[in-house]
Amino acid sequence: MDFRSDNVAGAAPEILAALAAANDGTASAYGDDDWSRELDAAFSVVFDTECRVFPVATGTAANALALGCLAPGFGAVFAHQDSHIVVDECNAPEFFTDGAKLVTLPGAGGKIDPAALEAALGQGWSGVQHHPQPAAVSLTQATESGTVYSPDEVAQFAHLCRANGMHLHMDGARFANAVAGMNVSPAALTWRAGVDVLSFGATKNGAFAAEAVVFFKPELAASFLYRRKRGGHLFSKMRFLSAQLLAMLQDGLWLRLARQANARAQQLSEGLQRIDGVSVAWLVQANEVFAAIPADIAERLRARGFRFHPWTPDNSLHRFVCAFNKTEDDVAGFLRAVTEEVGAA
Amino acid sequence: MDFRSDNVAGAAPEILAALAAANDGTASAYGDDDWSRELDAAFSVVFDTECRVFPVATGTAANALALGCLAPGFGAVFAHQDSHIVVDECNAPEFFTDGAKLVTLPGAGGKIDPAALEAALGQGWSGVQHHPQPAAVSLTQATESGTVYSPDEVAQFAHLCRANGMHLHMDGARFANAVAGMNVSPAALTWRAGVDVLSFGATKNGAFAAEAVVFFKPELAASFLYRRKRGGHLFSKMRFLSAQLLAMLQDGLWLRLARQANARAQQLSEGLQRIDGVSVAWLVQANEVFAAIPADIAERLRARGFRFHPWTPDNSLHRFVCAFNKTEDDVAGFLRAVTEEVGAA
Amino acid sequence: MDFRSDNVAGAAPEILAALAAANDGTASAYGDDDWSRELDAAFSVVFDTECRVFPVATGTAANALALGCLAPGFGAVFAHQDSHIVVDECNAPEFFTDGAKLVTLPGAGGKIDPAALEAALGQGWSGVQHHPQPAAVSLTQATESGTVYSPDEVAQFAHLCRANGMHLHMDGARFANAVAGMNVSPAALTWRAGVDVLSFGATKNGAFAAEAVVFFKPELAASFLYRRKRGGHLFSKMRFLSAQLLAMLQDGLWLRLARQANARAQQLSEGLQRIDGVSVAWLVQANEVFAAIPADIAERLRARGFRFHPWTPDNSLHRFVCAFNKTEDDVAGFLRAVTEEVGAA
Amino acid sequence: MDFRSDNVAGAAPEILAALAAANDGTASAYGDDDWSRELDAAFSVVFDTECRVFPVATGTAANALALGCLAPGFGAVFAHQDSHIVVDECNAPEFFTDGAKLVTLPGAGGKIDPAALEAALGQGWSGVQHHPQPAAVSLTQATESGTVYSPDEVAQFAHLCRANGMHLHMDGARFANAVAGMNVSPAALTWRAGVDVLSFGATKNGAFAAEAVVFFKPELAASFLYRRKRGGHLFSKMRFLSAQLLAMLQDGLWLRLARQANARAQQLSEGLQRIDGVSVAWLVQANEVFAAIPADIAERLRARGFRFHPWTPDNSLHRFVCAFNKTEDDVAGFLRAVTEEVGAA
Repeated sequence: MDFRSDNVAGAAPEILAALAAANDGTASAYGDDDWSRELDAAFSVVFDTECRVFPVATGTAANALALGCLAPGFGAVFAHQDSHIVVDECNAPEFFTDGAKLVTLPGAGGKIDPAALEAALGQGWSGVQHHPQPAAVSLTQATESGTVYSPDEVAQFAHLCRANGMHLHMDGARFANAVAGMNVSPAALTWRAGVDVLSFGATKNGAFAAEAVVFFKPELAASFLYRRKRGGHLFSKMRFLSAQLLAMLQDGLWLRLARQANARAQQLSEGLQRIDGVSVAWLVQANEVFAAIPADIAERLRARGFRFHPWTPDNSLHRFVCAFNKTEDDVAGFLRAVTEEVGAA
Repeated sequence: MDFRSDNVAGAAPEILAALAAANDGTASAYGDDDWSRELDAAFSVVFDTECRVFPVATGTAANALALGCLAPGFGAVFAHQDSHIVVDECNAPEFFTDGAKLVTLPGAGGKIDPAALEAALGQGWSGVQHHPQPAAVSLTQATESGTVYSPDEVAQFAHLCRANGMHLHMDGARFANAVAGMNVSPAALTWRAGVDVLSFGATKNGAFAAEAVVFFKPELAASFLYRRKRGGHLFSKMRFLSAQLLAMLQDGLWLRLARQANARAQQLSEGLQRIDGVSVAWLVQANEVFAAIPADIAERLRARGFRFHPWTPDNSLHRFVCAFNKTEDDVAGFLRAVTEEVGAA
Repeated sequence: MDFRSDNVAGAAPEILAALAAANDGTASAYGDDDWSRELDAAFSVVFDTECRVFPVATGTAANALALGCLAPGFGAVFAHQDSHIVVDECNAPEFFTDGAKLVTLPGAGGKIDPAALEAALGQGWSGVQHHPQPAAVSLTQATESGTVYSPDEVAQFAHLCRANGMHLHMDGARFANAVAGMNVSPAALTWRAGVDVLSFGATKNGAFAAEAVVFFKPELAASFLYRRKRGGHLFSKMRFLSAQLLAMLQDGLWLRLARQANARAQQLSEGLQRIDGVSVAWLVQANEVFAAIPADIAERLRARGFRFHPWTPDNSLHRFVCAFNKTEDDVAGFLRAVTEEVGAA
Repeated sequence: MDFRSDNVAGAAPEILAALAAANDGTASAYGDDDWSRELDAAFSVVFDTECRVFPVATGTAANALALGCLAPGFGAVFAHQDSHIVVDECNAPEFFTDGAKLVTLPGAGGKIDPAALEAALGQGWSGVQHHPQPAAVSLTQATESGTVYSPDEVAQFAHLCRANGMHLHMDGARFANAVAGMNVSPAALTWRAGVDVLSFGATKNGAFAAEAVVFFKPELAASFLYRRKRGGHLFSKMRFLSAQLLAMLQDGLWLRLARQANARAQQLSEGLQRIDGVSVAWLVQANEVFAAIPADIAERLRARGFRFHPWTPDNSLHRFVCAFNKTEDDVAGFLRAVTEEVGAA
């Protein structure tokens, strides 16, 4: 039973079927195909506004290319100190922005403290040649801690962006889980709250490899085509990326899969909190659970074949991610094992 | 009937089957899966030497990442003036090398003239602070003109590289077609002839999206993992890239598909040469045919639904690419149409 | 007697005096000083139009920073194949443009053949995601061959730039010599002919180290301050750069020095052409002479202490650069020596 | 009376004299002159070890080029959160390292807390493809807060570097002040304590514009020449940079000037501490004093013509920098004025 990441799952059957269906016949390469041409319209319906959509294959590419459209090499991008773009992308954001600086900000539960952003902006870098120029804020939705920003919280950052001539990016590798977790509309969580560009994740949510960079302000996308090709991220057989994304949006599959994953995380969180000596660190608002389990018990669970990531060096806090295809029985089985090991301790 | 590119085809059935098979169960992410771990060994068998192999999804990524391992930002990479890395990758090689210069060289039939390379090296840039430092030569195999470099020709460039402290890269987007066309071993065409790094293409040859960067000198790959991630080219569900590559190597599928494509190009070339007023520009050694067809006849053929790229601005030379799944009847049908239109002219 | 470059000379006495004068008292750092604030106005008078001026210390910095304002990383900059930015700046233009491609063009006498530029633009790169996007043309004035572009010739390139959405840059490391050589106004040779940005050289013309990037369209300079600092080219004690430039413009010193240098080149060229077996390669329009002198005679001249650069690997063509402080006697002495050696041969 | 920075001073008379002396006659360009060839030897004497020395004109260039030799684009450089390379160089370090990440660390008095570095390294980034690879630590000597690292403190960081495969850089824009302040040998504070590369500042200490990048491990300098030229930092008339540096080392001028500046800072610090309601924030160990002066008094002092930088947004802490040419009377005059204003309050 593998809770290490949603990435350990394969693809949903609907996605495999879509790929097979798209494999019929010839199609123009590099995005000039029926599937790819459908993308803008399909996303515009889901987001209830006109948007420009570009498929890529990885979340890091989506984030880095999006930021490349927002920040020049002499720019500054503000992000949470534990965010994926800061910690887990091996400098891809610096690479694709031609060397912009990621300014790291603190905040509880994986969420940027707006006061910390205000303080950073208060240093007066804007317009002063010695300093990187404030260009963008990047929020992760859901965060690395499995928490979410509410529409109001997003709007607060958007307000700071507007007031300081910056753009607002959202890393939505688990955007589906956030939308499902809050039960709000995709629009409410993005452009209505002031988001300019969204990295819309599908891979973690049951695709093979597909993400969409969604621009709510088309003018920001002016250079995207060239940046994507320059980054080696233009697929020749683009239809296979686009078909995955279309299948995700078809009949709300993306939210259905996210709801399943979130429900398993709730089940896991509630179960763990009923067990003595075990606790849950942050509010579970998406498909991740961060649980404090004593190191020795965690090790015995691992020895029984359960897989999950230690989140702190002292092996006291652990991350559990529920993929779209985890079942109620999967989680129940794990909870039983925890109970047994705690009892035996 | 679409001859514009091998990219207009979908994936071979064996590749789709491999993808479906790999979709079973959970697997560690980011390359720590059974399929990915198999890659080095599988390629080492095919190339008859130990090699280090890294899957990526696009040919541009393969080329640019490979060159990034060979050339620093103050370096020079020598390539044919019509090569893909020079003309068709929107500065990806410059991007991934942190700004190296592509020095363009002439040569007939898409092949670098070795004398041009010697002359360029004779300028005495090496060791002089004013000039970009010669770092690599990149050969395209098969070339953009559908021709190939023989092992001896490759070795001639390798010799120049060795003598000037440079490395030799091979852009093998159509490497399978070159191997099949010459009926030589993969080893003879690469490391035995002095190639250091190969971009091994599978996408054009019947994969969804899969290329392998093959290092014949492992020490050159030291930074590849970090460069790949920094470029956003590390797949979380890597097994799906690796499974495509393994399926290609399985029972020689890659050469079988390439031989089919090449045979159709031969059929097309021979048929066209039998038609009055039509000629073929370069020796057909892989799966591409460049044919001189009068502009008016070409237009009438296009009006009948045949698709192929004009190769010169005056619409007198045209490119025909045979994908792995073109049939004898496809080509015969096109040849009939050409004969009819030439007759009617 | 050293004719290798105008760089072998020191600074003119007026420049040294200006530096000493500027050394009095304290002054705000980083350009907020009296000298630096004067620059825009002083250059605007000389160029008869409002311009924005930024001092830097090297010609390579001036060129690369100017191009960085004109071309993005996915852009293409068109330049002569023998130009300084292509051959002699160790990829600084690629570096400061974040990886733009320098597309090299041929042309006699160091001047781009406009037909070659037209042909390159005719490839249809603009707006196509596979190709670098045409962004700028860079002309060298005077060229590496000591020739000049007339205002009409410059305008022809400007016209191609306008028609293709590109900007026009002029590398004027020897701009003073070109203006003096043609006896035209600085305005006629730049913005009136369509130049957008000029690298105005002073170092070769008798400064210690000072160049000015002159923007004739202020909006193109919007990011210059940040790019200059990011490149490490913002001087803390900026007054010492600005004072050199102001001294150059004062009472036309820059043209006086350039006229002296040019006159010596004319004297040298005319003298050489009177000597049997010696000839001059290109029209001498600035301060450089390229002379065909038999290799054995050239070597004997070098053995007598005369210094000049071989321009071709076979040591048959040689470059002579006259710095501002070469005297009539200097040149006459050299001409005597050539006559003697030719006579002795 | 201007205490804003050591940059508001001009050059010391000895430096001006050296420049004038170097202006005699012709000299080979680009560093192949008598002055430049002397540099390695002159610095090797001062540092009591063989070193490779490269002159550049700005401190930002020195730092960024040095770091470019130490950290690849996928690397991480650890530095104090208030350091010049983090805050005041407009992303030059990111630019010259091709996009490395600056990881910011806290620490009192402008000095990195070694425990914070240990914690950062304890995250386990090394060898893991997701994370930037630890490449270098950069210490500022003297720090932005006017404090210094003792040789033992430097050695502690060197030890962490060695244990983690990293290099140690020292930003010595005010290195002279640190050496003078501690009265230790240049060797003790650098290579003997484990520093690999030093940015040796001369500009703030009384040069026009001259810094030296000093490599104590020559192999780290292998690419420096190309990086410097690529950055536009190779001076054609290099003798004028080198002559400034040689004059600084001549008869210990650099330490004499630094001692003068430090003595004025001591005088200022001691004087301020004797005034009621005024205090000094950090130990004064170089030529900077950070003084808490009530905002209203500070404003009145500024109205009387004294210039100094507010260091905190609330205008309660102020920076005073003593340049090499501040006199005892200058400082005494300011102290009198403070006393008067405090008395009047």
